[in-house]
Amino acid sequence: MTAFKTRDWILKRRPQGMFDPSQDVEFQERTLSDPPEGMIIIRDAYISLDPAIRDWMSDTKSYLPPIPLDGPVWSSSVGEVVASNSSVYKVGDMVWGMGSWSDYSMSPDSYVFPVDASLGLPLQNFLSIVGAVGMTAYYGLLRIGQPKPGETVLVSAAAGAVGSVVGQIAKIKGCRVVGLAGSDEKCAWLTDELGFDASINYKTAGNLETAIANACPDGVDIYFENVGGEILDAALMNINKHARIPFCGRISVYNEKDKVPGPYNMWQLLAQTARMEGFLISDFFGDFAKDVPEMASWVKSGQIKFKEDIIEGLEHTPETFLKLFTGANTGKLMVKI
Amino acid sequence: MTAFKTRDWILKRRPQGMFDPSQDVEFQERTLSDPPEGMIIIRDAYISLDPAIRDWMSDTKSYLPPIPLDGPVWSSSVGEVVASNSSVYKVGDMVWGMGSWSDYSMSPDSYVFPVDASLGLPLQNFLSIVGAVGMTAYYGLLRIGQPKPGETVLVSAAAGAVGSVVGQIAKIKGCRVVGLAGSDEKCAWLTDELGFDASINYKTAGNLETAIANACPDGVDIYFENVGGEILDAALMNINKHARIPFCGRISVYNEKDKVPGPYNMWQLLAQTARMEGFLISDFFGDFAKDVPEMASWVKSGQIKFKEDIIEGLEHTPETFLKLFTGANTGKLMVKI
Repeated sequence: MTAFKTRDWILKRRPQGMFDPSQDVEFQERTLSDPPEGMIIIRDAYISLDPAIRDWMSDTKSYLPPIPLDGPVWSSSVGEVVASNSSVYKVGDMVWGMGSWSDYSMSPDSYVFPVDASLGLPLQNFLSIVGAVGMTAYYGLLRIGQPKPGETVLVSAAAGAVGSVVGQIAKIKGCRVVGLAGSDEKCAWLTDELGFDASINYKTAGNLETAIANACPDGVDIYFENVGGEILDAALMNINKHARIPFCGRISVYNEKDKVPGPYNMWQLLAQTARMEGFLISDFFGDFAKDVPEMASWVKSGQIKFKEDIIEGLEHTPETFLKLFTGANTGKLMVKI
Repeated sequence: MTAFKTRDWILKRRPQGMFDPSQDVEFQERTLSDPPEGMIIIRDAYISLDPAIRDWMSDTKSYLPPIPLDGPVWSSSVGEVVASNSSVYKVGDMVWGMGSWSDYSMSPDSYVFPVDASLGLPLQNFLSIVGAVGMTAYYGLLRIGQPKPGETVLVSAAAGAVGSVVGQIAKIKGCRVVGLAGSDEKCAWLTDELGFDASINYKTAGNLETAIANACPDGVDIYFENVGGEILDAALMNINKHARIPFCGRISVYNEKDKVPGPYNMWQLLAQTARMEGFLISDFFGDFAKDVPEMASWVKSGQIKFKEDIIEGLEHTPETFLKLFTGANTGKLMVKI
């Protein structure tokens, strides 16, 4: 069987607080061949950089076991099957799913999905708008949030890859949409390009609870929670009765060394008889084939716009990953191999 | 029109931390007559002492406005209508609902409900098992928790008026039930008298996360949340995928002066794609007429047992109220007027 020479970013140390490219990972070479039963080797075309990867690097109980030390850092990827010991995929199939920061990823066939060429979308879109990221927005808003026309939807990290799509789907569903973002430029993009009704620069808005109240005069029916911390607390003070809080992530705390308390205003869930519900995109993989065509149609009609922020070269992956936590990127961050 | 001489416990000061009977309330007399449009005067037979009253005494945003200073302390009560300016109730009707720490309560007709004499239950039961307290257990478990046979239900404050009923309904529904309580005596009552499968004395159990794991070998599908704080954090570490957390109260924090953080392990809602949902019994008042007969039938068949802890004399109300926060009472605490 053919052997594939691959470069991998290996997890050398679990990050102590903020991810440190010079200490936590190491660039190594190895050769892959003969996938075990149920496994395939994928030549990665693009790899996806997502905040959750930072969580997987830690040795804490989560929805996945931690990434093993001295193994490649896990990451979604899209590419071509080059070797298969699977009854599901054959050499030459295009797939997306769980890969790693590598030229070639070795993956279980149950963690990858076929690229639907009939959608007529470029390969990298399967890591963004019609992949886990875009569909996280879709299922989080529609299934967990259950928006009704005329309701107010508040989105945190609204200029991010998930948040920007959440807001646009909420507009399609007839909601008033307000986004929180960390710069005036991002805020302008939300209202001028994506059709958000209002945006709040949380870094300059002063009292955030008041700023949200001003931007949401009818209160908040759905708060799409991406961030945790003070923003969640301020949002909680503005929720309406029977509000829904799809709980998608907590980017503000992934790099914290110490345990981080929950929101001080969690009692608002009781006072407003509101619901906070965590969800994982993996629970919805089985529905992708049914629902991705709707998302693809919104993309092709121009109703959903999105940005991809594509860096070239596997060697730049760790420093690029850091951009997620400094607010330096807009759009779905990917590395082209 | 007849005048009614009443003694009232008046809120003189908003409590600073723990409720202080000598500083926060004052016993006064006044005369009630001529209820305004839509109001009735009730001769209170029993008044109900509930943790939520402490919350209403504070000047914080909640589901009710704060109790006005120099007005009587609000409390549920049951008694006879003695004067009415309402089209709904006439003199002589027996009612239960929002009253006050008073011989005679003046209440809006929209805040009280008829006593259903056909149930054949004593008057005080309308403040306990077939009133707001028992039905909080009923709706919180069945509507918010949605138990399925074979699931594990963990109940905090399980020897309390709500928790003890939650556990017994969960048993009727075929669940495995584990209760948390603060003394060996209470724990024995749960398992020996009420049929709980296991109980945990949280004061002596050592590591609470481990104790819950041992008592719930299949994890926790429903955690009925009454308390907040460390117990909530330990419960969160044991929840199963798609767990439900009916959020009923937070007795551990009502007497705190400072803001209290939410649970450190709130991220488990995401990791386990779980749901935490606040609810208020007032949202279900409209369903009482339909559902109370089922609860009454369980009481009469002996499937649901409950304790009432009845103190005689309005003058003892404030010191009796304190027992709620020291764990000194078992069963629904009431004052007989």
